[in-house]
Amino acid sequence: MTPDTTPAELEQALSAAAAAAKPLAASEPEVRAGWIRAVADALDAAVDELVPIAMRESSLPEARLRGEVARSSGQLRMFADVLAKGSLLEVIIDTADANAKPVPRPDLRRVLVPLGPVLVFAASNFPFAFSVCGGDTASALAAGCPVIVKAHPGHPELSARTAEVMIEALRAAGAPAGTLGLVQGYDVGVVALKDPRITAAGFTGSVPAGKALHEIAVTRPEPIPFYGELGSLNPVFVTQAAVDARGKDIATGYVGSFTLGVGQFCTKPGLLFLPAGHGLQEQLAEAAGGVAGAKMLNDRIAEGFSSGLDRLQKVDGIRVWASGGATLLQTTVGELLERREEILEECFGPVSIVVEYASEEELVSAVEAFEGNLTATLQAEEAVDAELAGKLLPLLTERAGRVLWNGWPTGVAVSWAQHHGGPFPSTVGSIHTSVGVTAARRFQRPVAYQDTPDTVLPAVLKDANPAGISRRVNGEVTTAEVSR
Amino acid sequence: MTPDTTPAELEQALSAAAAAAKPLAASEPEVRAGWIRAVADALDAAVDELVPIAMRESSLPEARLRGEVARSSGQLRMFADVLAKGSLLEVIIDTADANAKPVPRPDLRRVLVPLGPVLVFAASNFPFAFSVCGGDTASALAAGCPVIVKAHPGHPELSARTAEVMIEALRAAGAPAGTLGLVQGYDVGVVALKDPRITAAGFTGSVPAGKALHEIAVTRPEPIPFYGELGSLNPVFVTQAAVDARGKDIATGYVGSFTLGVGQFCTKPGLLFLPAGHGLQEQLAEAAGGVAGAKMLNDRIAEGFSSGLDRLQKVDGIRVWASGGATLLQTTVGELLERREEILEECFGPVSIVVEYASEEELVSAVEAFEGNLTATLQAEEAVDAELAGKLLPLLTERAGRVLWNGWPTGVAVSWAQHHGGPFPSTVGSIHTSVGVTAARRFQRPVAYQDTPDTVLPAVLKDANPAGISRRVNGEVTTAEVSR
Repeated sequence: MTPDTTPAELEQALSAAAAAAKPLAASEPEVRAGWIRAVADALDAAVDELVPIAMRESSLPEARLRGEVARSSGQLRMFADVLAKGSLLEVIIDTADANAKPVPRPDLRRVLVPLGPVLVFAASNFPFAFSVCGGDTASALAAGCPVIVKAHPGHPELSARTAEVMIEALRAAGAPAGTLGLVQGYDVGVVALKDPRITAAGFTGSVPAGKALHEIAVTRPEPIPFYGELGSLNPVFVTQAAVDARGKDIATGYVGSFTLGVGQFCTKPGLLFLPAGHGLQEQLAEAAGGVAGAKMLNDRIAEGFSSGLDRLQKVDGIRVWASGGATLLQTTVGELLERREEILEECFGPVSIVVEYASEEELVSAVEAFEGNLTATLQAEEAVDAELAGKLLPLLTERAGRVLWNGWPTGVAVSWAQHHGGPFPSTVGSIHTSVGVTAARRFQRPVAYQDTPDTVLPAVLKDANPAGISRRVNGEVTTAEVSR
Repeated sequence: MTPDTTPAELEQALSAAAAAAKPLAASEPEVRAGWIRAVADALDAAVDELVPIAMRESSLPEARLRGEVARSSGQLRMFADVLAKGSLLEVIIDTADANAKPVPRPDLRRVLVPLGPVLVFAASNFPFAFSVCGGDTASALAAGCPVIVKAHPGHPELSARTAEVMIEALRAAGAPAGTLGLVQGYDVGVVALKDPRITAAGFTGSVPAGKALHEIAVTRPEPIPFYGELGSLNPVFVTQAAVDARGKDIATGYVGSFTLGVGQFCTKPGLLFLPAGHGLQEQLAEAAGGVAGAKMLNDRIAEGFSSGLDRLQKVDGIRVWASGGATLLQTTVGELLERREEILEECFGPVSIVVEYASEEELVSAVEAFEGNLTATLQAEEAVDAELAGKLLPLLTERAGRVLWNGWPTGVAVSWAQHHGGPFPSTVGSIHTSVGVTAARRFQRPVAYQDTPDTVLPAVLKDANPAGISRRVNGEVTTAEVSR
């Protein structure tokens, strides 16, 4: 077992992060982008060394882990690109207006600045993409914040080695010492979270751990934002027309999605709603029954899955359609509504529930039974289901951060428009995302400069705009220069 | 005394707000903008009736209150305009990319949707602009959220009558019943804050009340965002060159600013840092001594001011330069640093402290003594102070949400670039603003639609863009139509 970070080591990490905050905040976007690209290159260069450690510690297969490294380095490069372009700074300029009513308006120029050191609680299920080199770290660095990662105990050696690779790359590229740090140990994470030098925290993990850490963060003497991704059921609703048109593909796609990565995705589809008489039982059971058993991420998760599965199978109205490497359960909307809390409790691992509905009204009731989720999916036929979709999409929108049409929720693209964060309990902080460009916003606060001369303004706020940054000037987005 | 809202009335307000959430969320931006404009028009039309009630309840003068009504109706119209243009929706579209690495990218379209019913705790010091018809209400309505205002007990009749005017305007314009509600009573506000139908809260008031309500909001079974503006010292730092160039103007401007509205602005400059030997004592004392006494907002605030002033005057190293209608105190940076906590405690009312510094190093130390503030101001001469300003502006940026050059912090322009929110303790939620267009973001969460056909997408996300909304498409801001 990896020993916990000692109090002296933690103090060193915190003071180094605090010391790095100023030079990081002062660094020009294109310079900081260079540091982030250096980290991406170093990760790619270390892939042959890192992946075997990850395989040993997480039991995940090589191809998946290599894909995760590519996703992580690609994500770092995406943030570097938008950072260098000035797009993360959300520059807004209102020039002075002596004739504004009821009072004259001063010149105001707003830009986002980094919050300061960020504590990232790494997840176990993506040893790269949601861990030391994952989205929280990438977005915080892009925002200009030093990062201390609290390693997940599921992959301590990988965490340590990944951090070494990243820290060396940052050093060689000229980033301030203390830009990245790593600590190990549950209590150490709590102590760090309470430290006044930490200005925000990101978390991906279980509901109980996330809620406990959230409460610590927001009830500190100086409360800080805590962005937690906690858990999600990711229901999929299938119309009769979709079953008629492509029932078999849906069955195959569903089993593939809920068993991906041994069902250890936060976006695993936990329930599939099918019209009664769908005729897919045999195919679903066969597909699920054919899934080979695989080792889970760690013993704690395997035990949690085993007891969760046990609990779920004993709920009245739950029937087993397939078991083995993956478990497929079945119930009806009527039974689900009767035992909502028991059935709608996330079970992390390769299990999912087919829920049969008898009518469109039952389908709507089923949608309304859900609380917040990361995703909600509609499998429908555009030509036939326009009216039903018009009814369901607003209900799904109320309950989820990402609404999919004829897709599967596993797989979270890293891009500008991505949103990975839904209403509670799927996340605390549903107005923010942990994936995609706008994730950087979590670690930035705006500052407005009033009537400040061009000579002393930050470069991106000056009248001239030689880099052609997109800025909102007097209400309109433009790359033009500003005249006072 | 106005009786508290009864439990039955509160239940009625909450269920009406919950019922209004869906139709408000579904309303087209230009339609909702029309409702908001109707409220603005109704307020302007009622100004002659409302201002006398406000004068009686707040002791504030007529001209100031008329200006506040104009500010409030103007603010509502600003939100209506940007809402109608689609600018509040932050549309981001990434079209599908089959060649994206490491995996193909789906079509993703992100838009902001309203959170749901918002509880607004009104302030006492701006009976219009930060009360029932103030910025929190305006921004929440623009976001598409129903609003329940918890009236400030300082102006209960004005609150009730303002709400009536607004509710009638909303009704006549066709807005859903329950779009706006009003409740009275401290305990009632707490009960409402704990209600699961409330999805976010805005607050302007004291540090203790704000901290207590914040804790309730974030430790509910379902935590909600709480945006609180709590208190601020708003220091002003004056260079030697500025004193040399325009010392007398600075003295006059300062006294005018800290005594504006009987010193009852959250942006009141609480401290003025002057170089030792500034030679302005006589003029400052004369200006402050000449300020006529005026009644404060209410007895509780008057008592708080009286005891706060008493406490402050007894702090070692504090000297009195003027007293009467306004109190001007004096100390030195050395003394301030020795008794930092005692001297840097906000005293709400017409008092401010001149702090003398002996050297540039002392000035820097003084800046570094501050925690979070809404504003920080530098009075300097561009031609002489470039180097000093280059040193001080980053320090001020770390500590404040708005940094002013040669201005006074009282007066908060309502515009796109405004930011009214600083690091804790000036606000909880320093990444958000309570004034300016971006205030609406506090009450919206993103939703991303994946691979959803044009026919069923919300209008603003469809390929065609007939209204010419600014959208970020594949990374670039454009008003053009999208091709899949």
